[in-house]
Amino acid sequence: METDRPLDALNIARNKRVIVELKNKVQITGNLKAFDIHINTVLADAEEHDESGALKRKLGTVFIRGDMIVLISPSPA
Amino acid sequence: METDRPLDALNIARNKRVIVELKNKVQITGNLKAFDIHINTVLADAEEHDESGALKRKLGTVFIRGDMIVLISPSPA
Amino acid sequence: METDRPLDALNIARNKRVIVELKNKVQITGNLKAFDIHINTVLADAEEHDESGALKRKLGTVFIRGDMIVLISPSPA
Amino acid sequence: METDRPLDALNIARNKRVIVELKNKVQITGNLKAFDIHINTVLADAEEHDESGALKRKLGTVFIRGDMIVLISPSPA
Amino acid sequence: METDRPLDALNIARNKRVIVELKNKVQITGNLKAFDIHINTVLADAEEHDESGALKRKLGTVFIRGDMIVLISPSPA
Amino acid sequence: METDRPLDALNIARNKRVIVELKNKVQITGNLKAFDIHINTVLADAEEHDESGALKRKLGTVFIRGDMIVLISPSPA
Amino acid sequence: METDRPLDALNIARNKRVIVELKNKVQITGNLKAFDIHINTVLADAEEHDESGALKRKLGTVFIRGDMIVLISPSPA
Repeated sequence: METDRPLDALNIARNKRVIVELKNKVQITGNLKAFDIHINTVLADAEEHDESGALKRKLGTVFIRGDMIVLISPSPA
Repeated sequence: METDRPLDALNIARNKRVIVELKNKVQITGNLKAFDIHINTVLADAEEHDESGALKRKLGTVFIRGDMIVLISPSPA
Repeated sequence: METDRPLDALNIARNKRVIVELKNKVQITGNLKAFDIHINTVLADAEEHDESGALKRKLGTVFIRGDMIVLISPSPA
Repeated sequence: METDRPLDALNIARNKRVIVELKNKVQITGNLKAFDIHINTVLADAEEHDESGALKRKLGTVFIRGDMIVLISPSPA
Repeated sequence: METDRPLDALNIARNKRVIVELKNKVQITGNLKAFDIHINTVLADAEEHDESGALKRKLGTVFIRGDMIVLISPSPA
Repeated sequence: METDRPLDALNIARNKRVIVELKNKVQITGNLKAFDIHINTVLADAEEHDESGALKRKLGTVFIRGDMIVLISPSPA
Repeated sequence: METDRPLDALNIARNKRVIVELKNKVQITGNLKAFDIHINTVLADAEEHDESGALKRKLGTVFIRGDMIVLISPSPA
């Protein structure tokens, strides 16, 4: 599979559990359903965690605006 | 229905109740009426809540500039 | 009238009284005279209010740079 | 005269005295000589005032970068 | 090898260990797998360190949004 | 000479002494040698001053990134 | 040599020692190897200094994202 471009890495993570870290220090975990070139991202079964990792709330499906995102990483199982 | 692109998720939420979280920590709930590629968003029957969830004011129809938005999620019923 | 796009909602508010909330927490009320795709906005008979709602000053006609705007909403009568 | 677009309002103010409010809370008054679509703005006979309105310095002609601007309004006589 | 353009320097570092410093002062080390013109960057075997250099967490593969990046430098061996 | 556009005002100041005020409150004086549409600016014989006007350091020739600039004004003689 | 455009000044400094000042107040000195229109910049033999000028660390080759840069100036010998 193509991995030369950054978005290829996101493509590989599609339908897998990821951590999305936001600029406001919130971390959202969920199943990566969609993303675009602005890194606008949709997660399913999403949960919002504060900096310490404590669960803040369950979000279900969530659309995250790309410019709020610091990083996206596969979630530890 | 198509769900490959992030804006498809917003399209599914059209005319449904959503929470829009802003960069200034305000949360606005309302019926999602319209959005565009900048994520400029229009809600009807909108209410503004502070971080704790307390109602700050009723806004009726509101246009929210996309670059203020952190996330959009279906509102719990 | 077309309401599918966010700017349609602003178009409906043209020549009506609106509240424009800025990123510096100032609120400006006035008659919506003009706006563009950057949400650069012109109000007539505008008044500037602080966060508590207290009148800070009367501005007459005012041009507001779009990137300062959080939201635009019809003003309560 | 055309007033449908926000920049029409600036055009009407050309060669008139305006207040330009900046994101750093400085207010600059001067005669509006030129502006462009980025709202880069040139004032003549400009004066810089702090938040309280006190004169900080006389600037003569000044070029203001558009992305620093919050609003532009006709100056009270 | 061509080195006239900044992205050439990143190209030379591909598949090598780099330090990526973020605007939130976090430092992420990892093997540089991919980047694009926005400097969106993918690292493998990535580790997150705080300002003092202490390990915060292991990230495995991570996608970093380009606009969060301050600098990228080869990691000391 | 054409003065309808903001960059015309900068053109008139070319090779003259100007003050460039930055978003970090630093003021740089120097001879305006070059600028572009992003307001990237080059000064010769430049000096950096703090907010109070005290000389911080001599810079010789300096390239200033346009997005850091608040305003450019002719320097008082 | 052409010096009408700001990037010409950077071109003259190519392969010479420069100071790059960042928005986080860090100063990086190094040999200017490459830059592009975003002012993404590559330095060789780079050293990072804090605001007081004290050496923080040696970076070797470093890629600096353009939007972090305040100014670039020839380094005093």
